[in-house]
Amino acid sequence: MKVVKFGGSSLASGAQLEKVFHIVTADPSRKAVVVSAPGKRHSEDTKVTDLLIACAEQYISSGDAPELCEAVIERYAEIAQELHLDQHIIERIRDDLFTLLNGDKSNPVQYIDAIKASGEDNNAKLIAAYFQHKGIQAEYVNPKDAGLFVTNEPGNAQVLPESYENLYRLRERDGLIIFPGFFGFSKAGDVITFSRSGSDITGSILANGLQADLYENFTDVDAVYSVNPSIVKNPKEISELTYREMRELSYAGFSVFHDEALIPAFRAGIPVQIKNTNNPAAQGTRVVSKRDNTNGPVVGIASDTGFCSIYISKYLMNREIGFGRKALQILEDYSLTYEHVPSGIDDITIILRQDQMDGSMERQLIRRIEEDLQADEVIVEHNLALIMVVGEAMRHNVGTTARASKALSEAQVNIEMINQGSSEVSMMFGVKEAQEERAVQALYQEFFAGVLIS
Amino acid sequence: MKVVKFGGSSLASGAQLEKVFHIVTADPSRKAVVVSAPGKRHSEDTKVTDLLIACAEQYISSGDAPELCEAVIERYAEIAQELHLDQHIIERIRDDLFTLLNGDKSNPVQYIDAIKASGEDNNAKLIAAYFQHKGIQAEYVNPKDAGLFVTNEPGNAQVLPESYENLYRLRERDGLIIFPGFFGFSKAGDVITFSRSGSDITGSILANGLQADLYENFTDVDAVYSVNPSIVKNPKEISELTYREMRELSYAGFSVFHDEALIPAFRAGIPVQIKNTNNPAAQGTRVVSKRDNTNGPVVGIASDTGFCSIYISKYLMNREIGFGRKALQILEDYSLTYEHVPSGIDDITIILRQDQMDGSMERQLIRRIEEDLQADEVIVEHNLALIMVVGEAMRHNVGTTARASKALSEAQVNIEMINQGSSEVSMMFGVKEAQEERAVQALYQEFFAGVLIS
Repeated sequence: MKVVKFGGSSLASGAQLEKVFHIVTADPSRKAVVVSAPGKRHSEDTKVTDLLIACAEQYISSGDAPELCEAVIERYAEIAQELHLDQHIIERIRDDLFTLLNGDKSNPVQYIDAIKASGEDNNAKLIAAYFQHKGIQAEYVNPKDAGLFVTNEPGNAQVLPESYENLYRLRERDGLIIFPGFFGFSKAGDVITFSRSGSDITGSILANGLQADLYENFTDVDAVYSVNPSIVKNPKEISELTYREMRELSYAGFSVFHDEALIPAFRAGIPVQIKNTNNPAAQGTRVVSKRDNTNGPVVGIASDTGFCSIYISKYLMNREIGFGRKALQILEDYSLTYEHVPSGIDDITIILRQDQMDGSMERQLIRRIEEDLQADEVIVEHNLALIMVVGEAMRHNVGTTARASKALSEAQVNIEMINQGSSEVSMMFGVKEAQEERAVQALYQEFFAGVLIS
Repeated sequence: MKVVKFGGSSLASGAQLEKVFHIVTADPSRKAVVVSAPGKRHSEDTKVTDLLIACAEQYISSGDAPELCEAVIERYAEIAQELHLDQHIIERIRDDLFTLLNGDKSNPVQYIDAIKASGEDNNAKLIAAYFQHKGIQAEYVNPKDAGLFVTNEPGNAQVLPESYENLYRLRERDGLIIFPGFFGFSKAGDVITFSRSGSDITGSILANGLQADLYENFTDVDAVYSVNPSIVKNPKEISELTYREMRELSYAGFSVFHDEALIPAFRAGIPVQIKNTNNPAAQGTRVVSKRDNTNGPVVGIASDTGFCSIYISKYLMNREIGFGRKALQILEDYSLTYEHVPSGIDDITIILRQDQMDGSMERQLIRRIEEDLQADEVIVEHNLALIMVVGEAMRHNVGTTARASKALSEAQVNIEMINQGSSEVSMMFGVKEAQEERAVQALYQEFFAGVLIS
């Protein structure tokens, strides 16, 4: 049995929904379909989720947003018309939306979250209606009825373990399950969304709960590329990679699959197959627990910009019990998350995403580190890029580091930082943002040149 | 004005003391002489400090230690006889030692500390007598009278800042100052020792307090070598290096100069000259704030064994605010100090000296990490060596990493960990202990082959 998830671009129009219909019905083992809200039809288009956020915000500020509401409903109406569906479904969506918009605004975060989630919820209703219209036994299932409970963290929900048992009971149902992605319910009964693009997470949770054999994730690319195609032209596609490799790649700039979405599937050992709605014949990329390493040590290279480093030095730091812990505590006091903490004998460097702090917070932070820790020197460097070279086979491959650093050196890239822990499946290089492209190209050339495009 | 410090092997016999006399008197700017206790005369010999520790321990357990006491006094007596000194000085040393041994034993740590320190203290008295005997105006100065105050941490004293002002007043004295190394006094008036080999620290403190132009540290090697001579034959000598480079090298296995001893000199910007008592004509090694980089990016390679790594992985660790801090807190609860913390997205590795924990503590620690942090996996790996490749010029030298990792790769050394932070003057490689020698030899070959022995 398979759980299939479709992203927003796969559901942006009636034509796209027809492709979805053919994909789902082509394989009778496809039991549950998780859907996003309608996405962009073309690059200038606006996603329904973004329209809904704007709509909710305008309702909060002015109590009304007629144009935005109509724009949302129009997107569903167009699709329904294209597919010759009964207008009744659009009336239902309109009613549901206005009920929500006129609901309790005393908790604005909660309010916006519920409106946001309606994009997926109404799309699931529409798609269930479409499948029924085509004579398929299909049913919209509400996450509350299904028992998908999450923590009360709007925009950042975490699934509660009991949900898996609840969802397992969906197996008893006949016919197709059409399930909205992106949100669950708090124990108090409120809609709470996952982080953005969280429909991938819903699909993974459902696959786990239903104990599916496969979680298929349909998107708009043929496969996960081994490197960002905007940096390297026509890069190699990855046919198979492990959860860990995928996690490392999706962390730093690979947006094909949601960062957190792998976990439920990973925990249940369910393979994830990434496929293209617009080209379902393409092999796609399979994410598995273990794989054969046939194509060299590196499976992919990811990079991301917007990092800064806080370098802290203090003579005899090494001797001071608790220094590193205290430095991290100060970051925690400012709710800052960090990525890496390379250290020397008398210094540590904390690397974090720089958009977490503005100039004022940065000055405060530096002062606190200087004063509380009696640091000799605190230096912040902005605009760094982190490059992850990822591959399980790097683990005990003598020479991978040498190849990577030689490639960077020959490209005249200065390595600001290196981080490679034991049992690592990745190697991290920190470089200046201006050198990111050159660095990634050099690494790709080193590890993928001469490898046939599969 | 110069402060000169002599190590134990430079003071082990009358013949050695004659060399010391010639060195000190050859340069009238040598004002203060800091002395260790008599060291080994040959490789099978026992240091006076070790005899004293055994003596103190036996006094605590049995109230007496006649043979050990005589062995200590005999060392001084032999030197006095060799130098034709009045026996009166030996009587004074004997009286001082027995007064201490019969003193208050209610605090054994304090008691042993005071006995240990008498090795230096009595040697300073003996050497002052010798210089006087030779017609030189020289005076033993007691650290208490001089105002060298330290924290009350026996075996790990830290100098109190007021000491520097107190010591400055020694400038007013005429003639040579003979000052015992290794200890100061607590504000309560107790003898408190620095960490082992702490006479280097005393010399550095005195140089700072006296605002000396140079701190000369006489030992038994011609210079600091660029690599451990027991791993590479006839290695290059280092003629000049910076405080930071020295600190990084002395940290990992370079025992020429005490790890902490550089700080007071560093803070006052006083150069440190390391020279050989047995070959004072040799150029030696100079430690300075800044130096010209003429001989390539690497100044030295140090390595040390006996490390272990604790690898902790947890899915989505990266997202959990405070994870690293909590892990370090657990180590702190066990009073464990760590060296490096390389990290991945979902894992961190903590590298520490393995002699800090026994099997039972290790099992407890792992259990706490697993339970408190809900870690997915905790793996401890023992018997690692850390190799430090050190050089200020590495900082912005494109390609040093590549050269180092290529050299290791060609020597078939598997790099378990790499750590290189921003603004680093060193690069750390973790390898298995069994591969340490091969790794160091390969790195030396890469960075020093073809460089003329200066």
